[in-house]
Amino acid sequence: MQRLRRLVRQRSARQAENVFVVEGAKVLAEALRAGAGIEAVFLGPGGSEELADRGLDVGARVFWLEPGVLERVADTVTPQPEIAIVRDVAVDLSSLRGATLLVVCVDVRDPGNAGTILRTAEAAGADGVVCCEGSVDFFNPKAVRASAGSLFHVPVVAGGDPVAVLEEIGNWGQRRLGAVARSGTDYATLDLTNPTAFVLGNEANGLPAQVEPLLDERVSIPMAGHAESLNVGMAAAVLCFEAARQRRVAAIVATETP
Amino acid sequence: MQRLRRLVRQRSARQAENVFVVEGAKVLAEALRAGAGIEAVFLGPGGSEELADRGLDVGARVFWLEPGVLERVADTVTPQPEIAIVRDVAVDLSSLRGATLLVVCVDVRDPGNAGTILRTAEAAGADGVVCCEGSVDFFNPKAVRASAGSLFHVPVVAGGDPVAVLEEIGNWGQRRLGAVARSGTDYATLDLTNPTAFVLGNEANGLPAQVEPLLDERVSIPMAGHAESLNVGMAAAVLCFEAARQRRVAAIVATETP
Repeated sequence: MQRLRRLVRQRSARQAENVFVVEGAKVLAEALRAGAGIEAVFLGPGGSEELADRGLDVGARVFWLEPGVLERVADTVTPQPEIAIVRDVAVDLSSLRGATLLVVCVDVRDPGNAGTILRTAEAAGADGVVCCEGSVDFFNPKAVRASAGSLFHVPVVAGGDPVAVLEEIGNWGQRRLGAVARSGTDYATLDLTNPTAFVLGNEANGLPAQVEPLLDERVSIPMAGHAESLNVGMAAAVLCFEAARQRRVAAIVATETP
Repeated sequence: MQRLRRLVRQRSARQAENVFVVEGAKVLAEALRAGAGIEAVFLGPGGSEELADRGLDVGARVFWLEPGVLERVADTVTPQPEIAIVRDVAVDLSSLRGATLLVVCVDVRDPGNAGTILRTAEAAGADGVVCCEGSVDFFNPKAVRASAGSLFHVPVVAGGDPVAVLEEIGNWGQRRLGAVARSGTDYATLDLTNPTAFVLGNEANGLPAQVEPLLDERVSIPMAGHAESLNVGMAAAVLCFEAARQRRVAAIVATETP
């Protein structure tokens, strides 16, 4: 249990062992469905017997725990009765070459936003999400919960210096669009049907100055009223679904053109 | 303090007194900026003297509290050192007649989603948000925090039977578009430049059967991958900003047409 507790709490422990922790029946089911490597499943009273069986089927060790044990391990007050150690699913940046839609997170700090971004990226059909150094660990338990299992379905790159990442994807021909709260080009006026990478910055401070020279364009979501800015998760949804919308339109036009 | 504690925790207490509670300097500043009626401001150690002064300026009673008092009142573990009792800002449904963009929440339960919807509605330029009976109280402290002050800038209708609300706004000529996870019309293929009301359902169960006959159309956000559905807050952002986008395009076309 000491090991599990460490893996829940410490990014360094997760990185040293190349594993992360998922909590709850829903996310564990997604992990199994996606064929992720499940190393061990821990179940408290009321845990899903079906998930325990499916864990055994894929070679995981399965442990039933006494009441109160999970509470000492998990990072929520009332943990769900399933928790599992899953082998790292992060991919190398180079595997995303050829992508047509990417999300690059520079210094996104809130695990809830990280999860929302993963969920959005998957739903909008993005080819991958890059979370650069300085961002929250997208494999921390809170982000994993917030992703609702999306991180098993959309390729995630963990780490990488933002400047180096933006240089590399620029060399691939990705158009790097930095989201800024104001004074950028209206995102919806741009052609988003070509290879596009949305670059998202810090919740409070936006994009750091060092990445500015590596942006092909600064984009903003025009806002009414007194609204200061959308949170970064909502902005990601608006941007990615506009790209998806434009691509549906382009696909229809392509089909209809003789 | 007993009264404040009740107002934080009990919807019935808020309704009986026609007030609600805002926490934190940011939201309180928005309330002041919007000219909301501030009845009382309570500050703990480290509370903003500037906000205290601005509270006095608008006729609020101001109380400085001993260390530890706010912690017993607020609903967060480490409350911000400003908390205020604000007079109800909800409006009547009839005041939204003539709206061109509305969001109607039927049975939205999560206060975080409520706050996100308010924030989205304001930023996308919606004319109002209707939270029907059965939905979470959009004036509960968690929703107020999540709205980041938007509920002082976008008109909110609290309550109302969903069927009666949809009948009334239908009589006004609002096109009522019910968001459904799948099998609805692609939202982006519809003309959203005319008076439009997005109708959002429960996080788990979607829209109740009773409102179906009152929808003019069922709309879905096409999704890639294994994604089950966007959460209701993200869906609201995608839908409202598509309406905003179409309206910007229409305004440009109108300007350019001689």
